[in-house]
Amino acid sequence: MMISQDIKKQIHVIKMLLLDVDGVLTRGSIIYTDKAEEVKIFSVKDGLGLRLLMDAGIQVGIVTGRTSKALLTRCDNLGITLIFDGIHHKEDVLDTIIQKTGLGYHEIAFAGDDLPDIRIMKKTGFPIAVANACPEVRSAASYITSAQGGDGAVREISELILKTQGLWDKAIHQFL
Amino acid sequence: MMISQDIKKQIHVIKMLLLDVDGVLTRGSIIYTDKAEEVKIFSVKDGLGLRLLMDAGIQVGIVTGRTSKALLTRCDNLGITLIFDGIHHKEDVLDTIIQKTGLGYHEIAFAGDDLPDIRIMKKTGFPIAVANACPEVRSAASYITSAQGGDGAVREISELILKTQGLWDKAIHQFL
Amino acid sequence: MMISQDIKKQIHVIKMLLLDVDGVLTRGSIIYTDKAEEVKIFSVKDGLGLRLLMDAGIQVGIVTGRTSKALLTRCDNLGITLIFDGIHHKEDVLDTIIQKTGLGYHEIAFAGDDLPDIRIMKKTGFPIAVANACPEVRSAASYITSAQGGDGAVREISELILKTQGLWDKAIHQFL
Amino acid sequence: MMISQDIKKQIHVIKMLLLDVDGVLTRGSIIYTDKAEEVKIFSVKDGLGLRLLMDAGIQVGIVTGRTSKALLTRCDNLGITLIFDGIHHKEDVLDTIIQKTGLGYHEIAFAGDDLPDIRIMKKTGFPIAVANACPEVRSAASYITSAQGGDGAVREISELILKTQGLWDKAIHQFL
Repeated sequence: MMISQDIKKQIHVIKMLLLDVDGVLTRGSIIYTDKAEEVKIFSVKDGLGLRLLMDAGIQVGIVTGRTSKALLTRCDNLGITLIFDGIHHKEDVLDTIIQKTGLGYHEIAFAGDDLPDIRIMKKTGFPIAVANACPEVRSAASYITSAQGGDGAVREISELILKTQGLWDKAIHQFL
Repeated sequence: MMISQDIKKQIHVIKMLLLDVDGVLTRGSIIYTDKAEEVKIFSVKDGLGLRLLMDAGIQVGIVTGRTSKALLTRCDNLGITLIFDGIHHKEDVLDTIIQKTGLGYHEIAFAGDDLPDIRIMKKTGFPIAVANACPEVRSAASYITSAQGGDGAVREISELILKTQGLWDKAIHQFL
Repeated sequence: MMISQDIKKQIHVIKMLLLDVDGVLTRGSIIYTDKAEEVKIFSVKDGLGLRLLMDAGIQVGIVTGRTSKALLTRCDNLGITLIFDGIHHKEDVLDTIIQKTGLGYHEIAFAGDDLPDIRIMKKTGFPIAVANACPEVRSAASYITSAQGGDGAVREISELILKTQGLWDKAIHQFL
Repeated sequence: MMISQDIKKQIHVIKMLLLDVDGVLTRGSIIYTDKAEEVKIFSVKDGLGLRLLMDAGIQVGIVTGRTSKALLTRCDNLGITLIFDGIHHKEDVLDTIIQKTGLGYHEIAFAGDDLPDIRIMKKTGFPIAVANACPEVRSAASYITSAQGGDGAVREISELILKTQGLWDKAIHQFL
C-alpha cells in the first residue's frame, strides 16, 4: 500500500501500538474444546515484530472484548503487560491509558478488524485495519495491511512503524 | 450474488434463522483429541453477526445431527438458547419449533451445507446454502453465500437479513 | 477428471474401499499437544460420503502406518470397524483382508498420498491418489481426486464409486 | 527453482541438515490452550522426507529459539535426537555441533524463515529459506523452497539433497 505524507506524519509520532486480538493477532477463529476451554492460534512472525517494536521503545498493548488464558500466555511469552480484556467499550480504555501514561491520542495506533474497534480507532492518531477487516473498519483506517490478521498483519504493522520512524536498521542489526 | 425481488420478499418476513453447525458455523472440520474429545473452530465475525441479528429481534437457533460440548460453549457464549442437537431428521424439528413459537414456515430461514439439510431447507421460507455446500444443497437454496462456512458465511447471512429488512443502520449505530 | 471406460470397469466391481489416514482422511497435519497427545482433523463431508458408501454395501477399511486414539474415535463415530493401524508394510495387510473376506484384489480400492501407499495401491483393483499425493503415488493411480485429502477427497471417491456403480440416486433418496 | 552448478556443489557435500522449527517444520502458528499448553502442527510428508534423509546417512538436527513438549514428541516420533531448543544465538550452537561431530561448516545445511536464522545460515555451507521466509532470510539463502514451512518445505529440501547427491532412487526403492 502506498503511504501518503500525511499518513507518514501520523506514524512518525506513534509511541504505542494497541491491538485487538481475535482477527488481528489471530485469524478470527474461536476454538473451543469439549471442556469449554479456548485455544488460540497466534503467529510466530507477529511475535518477533512486536518484540522488535518494544525493544525500539514503542509500547504495545492489548484491548479485546473477550478474555482467555491462552491470550495471557501469549502476552506473557512476548513480554506484553498492558492488557485490557473483557472490554465492552474499547474507546473508554483509551482514556485510561492516556491518563496513566501521559501519552496523547495522536501518539497511539490501534489495529482492528470489526465493528467494536471503530470508535477507539477514530480516537487514535493512527487507525489501522487488517486485510480481513469488515468494510466499516477499513473505511475508518489510515492504513490497511496487505497481510491477514493472525498471518503477518501485526508483523507488517510493526515493520511499518519501525521503518517509517527510521528504527528498522538498528532493530535488525543484531541479526545481521 | 444478485438478489431478485422474489428473494427479497422471502427475506423481508424472516423472523428466525436456523443454522446447521459443521460446515456452516465451522469449516466442516471434525477434530478429535487422543482423549476422544471434540474441538470446534468457529468465527468471531460470525458471532458478531448473530448477536446483531438477535439484538434486532431475529431469533437464532441451531439444528445439527451431531452434538458436542464445544458447540454448547459457543452457543452459551453468543446467547443462543434454541439448540437442537443429535437430530437425525432435521425437518421434524421445524414442526416442533413452529408449534412452540407460533411462527410460520415462511418466517424461518435455514442455512445448510450437506444432504441432511435439504428437507428442512425446502420447508423453510428462505433456504440458504453456504459457498462450500454440496451441489444438491446449492440447488435447493434461494441464496448461496460468497463466504465459506466457518469463515464468514453466517456473518454474510446476518448482514443480508438485517440490510434487506432495513435494520442494518440501526444495528451498527452503536459502533459508529 | 475424465474417466475412461477401463477405469469405469475397475470401479464397477469394487466392494471395499481401503483408506490411508494422514493426508487422505486428513490434510496431513501431525498435531501434538504438550502432553504428547495427538489431535486429528477430519472432514464432516468425507464422513457422510463414507456412510453412504457403507449403507450401499461397499465396505470401508483403514490401513495406516501410524496409530492414534483420535483416529479410533472417528472410526467409531462413522461405524468403521476394519482398522489396521501401526502397519509398516501395508501390502501385507491386503492379503490378510482377502483371506478374511474372500474378496479378490480386483474388488478392493485403495486411496493413498505418499510412498508407503504405492505397493498396496499396485495390488488393488482401483488405486486412487488424492490431489496432494506425491508424484510417485500419482503415477501409480488410476484416478487422482480433484479435492485435497482431509478436504473432500474421500467424499469425491465415495460419490465416484456410488455413481459409477449406479447406486448414488438410491443412496441420496432419503435426503430428497 | 533452477539450481546452478555452484549450488549443486554446495548440496553435494552436505552431511547434516539443521532446521528451525516455527515457520519451517510448522506453518509458524503459535497455539496455546487455556491451560498454557502449546500445540504444534507438523506435516506427515515432511516427516517421511526426514526419515529418508536419515536412512541415507544425512544427519538431521533441530535449532530453535523456543521450546515445547510437542516438538520433543515429534522429534522422538521421527528419531531425531540432535535437538537444541531455547537457543538465543543459533550461530553459537553451530560451533558446538562442529566440535562434537567433526563436520565442517560447508557440510551443514540450515533451513530458516526469520531474522534469528540469518547468522547461522550465513555460517553454513547450504543456507535455505522456506517460501514464507522474511525478505532478509530469503536474501541470505542459496535456495528458497517452493513449498511453505509446515506444508512440504522440509520434504522438498529432503528430496533436493537426496536427488542432488544421487541417493533418491535408492531411498525410495523400498516403496516401489
